[in-house]
Amino acid sequence: MIPRYEAKAITPIWSDENKFKTFLRIELELLRALEEKKMIPSGIAETIQNTAKIHTDRIDEIELTTRHDVIAFCTSITEQLPADIGKYFHYGVTSSDVIDSALTLQIKSSLDVVMKSYDAFLEALKARAIETKMLMTLGRSHGMYAEPMSFGQKLLGHYAEFKRRRSELQEFYDNELTIQLSGAVGNYTILTPDIEESVAKKLGVKVEDVSTQIIPRDRIAKMISITSLVANAIERLAVEIRHLHHSDVREVAEGFRAGQKGSSTMPHKKNPIASENLTGLSRFLRSHLTMALENAILWHERDISHSSAERLYLPDHFGILTYALDRFTTTLNLLDIDEKVIEGKVLAHTHYLSSFYLHFLIKNCESLTREDLYTVVQAASFDVEAKSNPLKYREFIQNELKSRKIDVKLPEVTPEGLRNIYLKSVDHVFNRVL
Amino acid sequence: MIPRYEAKAITPIWSDENKFKTFLRIELELLRALEEKKMIPSGIAETIQNTAKIHTDRIDEIELTTRHDVIAFCTSITEQLPADIGKYFHYGVTSSDVIDSALTLQIKSSLDVVMKSYDAFLEALKARAIETKMLMTLGRSHGMYAEPMSFGQKLLGHYAEFKRRRSELQEFYDNELTIQLSGAVGNYTILTPDIEESVAKKLGVKVEDVSTQIIPRDRIAKMISITSLVANAIERLAVEIRHLHHSDVREVAEGFRAGQKGSSTMPHKKNPIASENLTGLSRFLRSHLTMALENAILWHERDISHSSAERLYLPDHFGILTYALDRFTTTLNLLDIDEKVIEGKVLAHTHYLSSFYLHFLIKNCESLTREDLYTVVQAASFDVEAKSNPLKYREFIQNELKSRKIDVKLPEVTPEGLRNIYLKSVDHVFNRVL
Amino acid sequence: MIPRYEAKAITPIWSDENKFKTFLRIELELLRALEEKKMIPSGIAETIQNTAKIHTDRIDEIELTTRHDVIAFCTSITEQLPADIGKYFHYGVTSSDVIDSALTLQIKSSLDVVMKSYDAFLEALKARAIETKMLMTLGRSHGMYAEPMSFGQKLLGHYAEFKRRRSELQEFYDNELTIQLSGAVGNYTILTPDIEESVAKKLGVKVEDVSTQIIPRDRIAKMISITSLVANAIERLAVEIRHLHHSDVREVAEGFRAGQKGSSTMPHKKNPIASENLTGLSRFLRSHLTMALENAILWHERDISHSSAERLYLPDHFGILTYALDRFTTTLNLLDIDEKVIEGKVLAHTHYLSSFYLHFLIKNCESLTREDLYTVVQAASFDVEAKSNPLKYREFIQNELKSRKIDVKLPEVTPEGLRNIYLKSVDHVFNRVL
Amino acid sequence: MIPRYEAKAITPIWSDENKFKTFLRIELELLRALEEKKMIPSGIAETIQNTAKIHTDRIDEIELTTRHDVIAFCTSITEQLPADIGKYFHYGVTSSDVIDSALTLQIKSSLDVVMKSYDAFLEALKARAIETKMLMTLGRSHGMYAEPMSFGQKLLGHYAEFKRRRSELQEFYDNELTIQLSGAVGNYTILTPDIEESVAKKLGVKVEDVSTQIIPRDRIAKMISITSLVANAIERLAVEIRHLHHSDVREVAEGFRAGQKGSSTMPHKKNPIASENLTGLSRFLRSHLTMALENAILWHERDISHSSAERLYLPDHFGILTYALDRFTTTLNLLDIDEKVIEGKVLAHTHYLSSFYLHFLIKNCESLTREDLYTVVQAASFDVEAKSNPLKYREFIQNELKSRKIDVKLPEVTPEGLRNIYLKSVDHVFNRVL
Repeated sequence: MIPRYEAKAITPIWSDENKFKTFLRIELELLRALEEKKMIPSGIAETIQNTAKIHTDRIDEIELTTRHDVIAFCTSITEQLPADIGKYFHYGVTSSDVIDSALTLQIKSSLDVVMKSYDAFLEALKARAIETKMLMTLGRSHGMYAEPMSFGQKLLGHYAEFKRRRSELQEFYDNELTIQLSGAVGNYTILTPDIEESVAKKLGVKVEDVSTQIIPRDRIAKMISITSLVANAIERLAVEIRHLHHSDVREVAEGFRAGQKGSSTMPHKKNPIASENLTGLSRFLRSHLTMALENAILWHERDISHSSAERLYLPDHFGILTYALDRFTTTLNLLDIDEKVIEGKVLAHTHYLSSFYLHFLIKNCESLTREDLYTVVQAASFDVEAKSNPLKYREFIQNELKSRKIDVKLPEVTPEGLRNIYLKSVDHVFNRVL
Repeated sequence: MIPRYEAKAITPIWSDENKFKTFLRIELELLRALEEKKMIPSGIAETIQNTAKIHTDRIDEIELTTRHDVIAFCTSITEQLPADIGKYFHYGVTSSDVIDSALTLQIKSSLDVVMKSYDAFLEALKARAIETKMLMTLGRSHGMYAEPMSFGQKLLGHYAEFKRRRSELQEFYDNELTIQLSGAVGNYTILTPDIEESVAKKLGVKVEDVSTQIIPRDRIAKMISITSLVANAIERLAVEIRHLHHSDVREVAEGFRAGQKGSSTMPHKKNPIASENLTGLSRFLRSHLTMALENAILWHERDISHSSAERLYLPDHFGILTYALDRFTTTLNLLDIDEKVIEGKVLAHTHYLSSFYLHFLIKNCESLTREDLYTVVQAASFDVEAKSNPLKYREFIQNELKSRKIDVKLPEVTPEGLRNIYLKSVDHVFNRVL
Repeated sequence: MIPRYEAKAITPIWSDENKFKTFLRIELELLRALEEKKMIPSGIAETIQNTAKIHTDRIDEIELTTRHDVIAFCTSITEQLPADIGKYFHYGVTSSDVIDSALTLQIKSSLDVVMKSYDAFLEALKARAIETKMLMTLGRSHGMYAEPMSFGQKLLGHYAEFKRRRSELQEFYDNELTIQLSGAVGNYTILTPDIEESVAKKLGVKVEDVSTQIIPRDRIAKMISITSLVANAIERLAVEIRHLHHSDVREVAEGFRAGQKGSSTMPHKKNPIASENLTGLSRFLRSHLTMALENAILWHERDISHSSAERLYLPDHFGILTYALDRFTTTLNLLDIDEKVIEGKVLAHTHYLSSFYLHFLIKNCESLTREDLYTVVQAASFDVEAKSNPLKYREFIQNELKSRKIDVKLPEVTPEGLRNIYLKSVDHVFNRVL
Repeated sequence: MIPRYEAKAITPIWSDENKFKTFLRIELELLRALEEKKMIPSGIAETIQNTAKIHTDRIDEIELTTRHDVIAFCTSITEQLPADIGKYFHYGVTSSDVIDSALTLQIKSSLDVVMKSYDAFLEALKARAIETKMLMTLGRSHGMYAEPMSFGQKLLGHYAEFKRRRSELQEFYDNELTIQLSGAVGNYTILTPDIEESVAKKLGVKVEDVSTQIIPRDRIAKMISITSLVANAIERLAVEIRHLHHSDVREVAEGFRAGQKGSSTMPHKKNPIASENLTGLSRFLRSHLTMALENAILWHERDISHSSAERLYLPDHFGILTYALDRFTTTLNLLDIDEKVIEGKVLAHTHYLSSFYLHFLIKNCESLTREDLYTVVQAASFDVEAKSNPLKYREFIQNELKSRKIDVKLPEVTPEGLRNIYLKSVDHVFNRVL
């Protein structure tokens, strides 16, 4: 139905078949733990593992009668087993123990996929940042030219934002994926906390501290708040590309392999469609946050209002997030960064030098007040010729100083000179992040 | 204007006067760092500290002309100084270096207040949880009676959620409060990264890895995503109290000092107004999240679209959050928990015992299949007398078993017996969290 | 993938095949209008209608190369036509003319389905309101008992809210469904406004006043703001049912055919699952609103950021809305309203009579001040026996008055008497709405 | 506290003093209606109107004890009156009758202010649209140059969006401002519907069809959904200005009086701060929508969770909306639209002519297939010289045709020629909207 925006590795995780397989995996681990604790006879788990199969059609058929997917699942399994084995299947758990623990495992599998795509994306972004570290661009505030800066550092700022999110995702993955096997309302009527802990350990996740028939939904809300911030990071970078791609800006273009610029015959026809799509997908991802928050405010020990919404949005959330990261990786790899245009704008303007020269003079020219110096420097900004020629700009101020008998030699402003002024701390900043 | 919902400790942090004092504090620390680095003559900072005062009226007056609050602030300071001192004031920084670093310090002060109120709230909630640990209540799923559980554990589940948020707030406070002194577009034209780091250290915060004239707004969005989850936790607990307060439920009541129940003559007139107010305030707090997210997607190195929204919502956000926590602390402290009503409901129902007896028999009665056992236990649930008398319930099943010549002795179900079944793991769960 | 929450009548509207059929329908209407205006030779439209077929597989195949669905569609059509006919296909329009006009027609078809389900839902709700018009229930404010009122009027309040939305939907349907055939940026380079108007008329929709390559997205945002309010109305009613369904309230129950109460053997096992599901689905629907709003703020004449999000959420939005309305209709039809429990609570309390008697006495007892009368009436509220017996309550006050030598006869308070007091304006209120 | 973003006409509407004055106004109208119905002695209303004054300090003092603002208000009024008059004050109403009806009147006053500012804004926008109706600009899709269009029509598109909202606001104002005087839970225990209708008529508003102690909150949610769409319209136009203001685009500039361009010495220093502020304020306004929606889902006949949030956001909502409209009016009036730059870009490109010539040839050149014609026209787009010279572009195609012995005379493409092609339907479109 939504073929274009699907992540192939996510879809099967959320299939009915995989859901029931995950149910079975949890039930088997539980049985093993019960056997170890001598709460049931030994060998049950192994027999079931060897005998029982997931038949989704049969489960669906039973569910038409029972209207309850866990009961249908259990019936479908136990009808494959002898009665003295089957009686221990689903022992001591409540349906939600299985459902919510399985949900955690599906989320875990999804996050495995997401984080793999995420890391590839980070690599691509880092590579483009490093590649353009010494490329000068005119930084902009309010959309207006400000001062030259490193184009790579522009990308590095985005990279740093994505890294923050990556470490939050990892922390969630390491500490907040929890299961429960705690009974009707988290009261361990039949099972005990140590069985739950033993199963959690085998499944590679944590135990929920206080479950209440369900795993509290602030867990999912927390996760979606992280991925919403990822969506935000995606949109911010996509918006930057769309700006730089604008017909009046023309600093980057989507879809050209680096170095292949010459082969493009109709640059004006190229639209930043990937970045625009990514912007829309970011909105889509972020739209889940309000729902995830509202879903966490359940009544008493639980109500089931979260479940219909989660069934709809969770598979899409992981699928679209993965798709967006993958597509952005490709977009970045193919992004044509037009160094000539970018650096050309830096060299075609000089008004930004006012701040540099003013501070140089404050330090090196004791005889004039700040107000006088400001006037000297400002004049250069108004001079037509100086405006777009760094060398003239310096010369203009130098002459002005000479006329006032002030003997201060201003630093040069060749392209390399500009780089020395405006890119001198780039390495330091890169080292902070990489 | 909103006197009832104001947190007295938050308001002054966001006054104009404090903003300008914070500007001055940052400028002075910068000057000290510049002196240490010998970039300016020594003694400047001390002279200014001893001479310059914040006159908000004068700054307002200047701002009428300059239409720029930082320039107005600087002018107001330098006009109090001799020219050879004043020329070094605001040396090398861009306005946003001061504005955004000051914003971080204001947020830091606000979080100090928030976290103090938060800790008091946590203490109150913990106390009520411990106090009611062994109080049996009927847990509810879908709003329907499920099984008995510990009332204290119900509160503990909320406590655990609040604790998760508290540690996230602390982590943000420790690692994500950052300043910048990086110049026009984060390019360190005049200042150097080590000056920035030195100032950050003195101010007790971190340096922003990659600033771009501003501190990237995903920082604030991250913070608001944490406090939105706090708001969620507040609403979830408030909703629980409102449910238990309902005329048909009557398990708790707001505003009665514990032990003073007898003095109330008109219990039907008591409304859960605090919890309802807190619900509305939670929605208010959470409403800031969409805005904080949209605010982070700025153009190029920065645009100023975030600033008008932040000026409006940030002071309110901290003020209302603190107010809500304080009010909830009082509400919890005064909450009347009617133990007799609560435990009375547990004792007036027994149908929930079916699960306990069924599992007991699965383990202890080899001769019958699960299906047979299910029938035996289910019959008790239908018996009118057994329905509301635990002892009768057991007797009913016992007789049923006897009639089938099965010799299994079922455990007793006195109130203490119920506690042994349904509260036996409470200590374990409390130990996980406290 | 989401079989349980699908509306069968919505899915085909959003299939690729139907999209392309709708494209073709628009192109044919355009050709007919061009023929009428003699801008192209006559007979073209008829020939194409008789010749060209939609082959989605072939279109998909072409799209793999062209990466543009409209071009693929056009190519697939024209390759079925002779060159001198095919040259006029897609004459003068820009891709978005076709895409956005088709989107409007798909929305129109979807709204046809939604409104049919909506009307059935309104009928069901109205029927239950009328049926319970004279059933007394204890109204609640703050979740606490207030005064008796009509149960039917409770439902009527919800009905009135749903009616408001219904008329907004109709107004949108009648006035805001627009198409465009306005060229590259709404500048009618080739086509003319009267052609556009002629086609719109034949398609039964309006012309967009100012299109800009696309139909402005505030249209969709407006529609989603209406349906979000519908979702809100759904959630409010679902929440009411969940409350009345609560184990401690037990006034209604889901899923019992009216009159069949006796057949239910285990009422305590019935959960309000439909209402909980509907609550979650309402959150899902409402979550689309932020996205729809953000999608409307496009750059210049259009960017394509809205498109990826719309493709994902629009089909789901209509599908879930229809599903929710249909399911709520069934839920209402089957809802068991326990008149005995409901009216029983009214008769078991009398404290609410204080207001009625106080006002009666203010008017009929000149000799006492309001303060005195208040004391007289209040005393009855404190009397244990009077509290739960309307007749005793009246008698208590009557005696109190007699002891003060006041000869005023209070009206009776039999169940019919209560109805006369508290339900006397019900007909008037129903007449306002129905 | 937020002086910069305050609308002076809104603030007093939401003062405590005005709230109590509005309470009194409603109570007096009620008394008059009761007198007319002979339910109370005549003359009461007039006596109270002449005697009672609003003393907010005294009300605050009483509220410290009563903790209920309506009771404090009533006490403060009745203590100014003789007992036999005072006993009829607040006769038959419940507190919420007064509170919610007063809220409606405060909203009405606020909408009066909003709509006045709105109309001024519309006038300003219309004026700029008309002024630039015949100014050619390069329309952009995906941020990339598309075809020439009217600059005025660009503005007209925004105007049409604002007009849609304006009529929705009017409709809300005319039909959805409602009061209630319906008693404890909308059951008219004491008062009657015709009294309510009589008071509503005098206050110039409607009666709420079904009130339930309160006016249902979907009313406010509906209003905020309209104003959120207004915020959206504001942001869309602000974003357009910010784009056109960008250093690389330079088509408009904020804050220069039209015609005064020459006087500006430092155009590069001008930032689009008003439009950026307006963007942030739009986000602020829109952030209230989620809250307004959540606030409408109240429990039973009402809970009070909406009230704390409304008290916080409603005054701000109207204040900021008015401020934003006023500021945008000024911004538009002062906006410098650089006609030379704008039209210069149209004349410096010609590739967009391909579509025009292609369609011209499809109609006028029978001997070539569409594919052949496409090749002919496309070639011109690749020709370096033709790319930026409309006359050369035509000549290029003409020569190409001649070489193929085709005798078709292409229309001219002088600037006036371009206007004839791309602006020929502008009047028609303007007439649709104005």
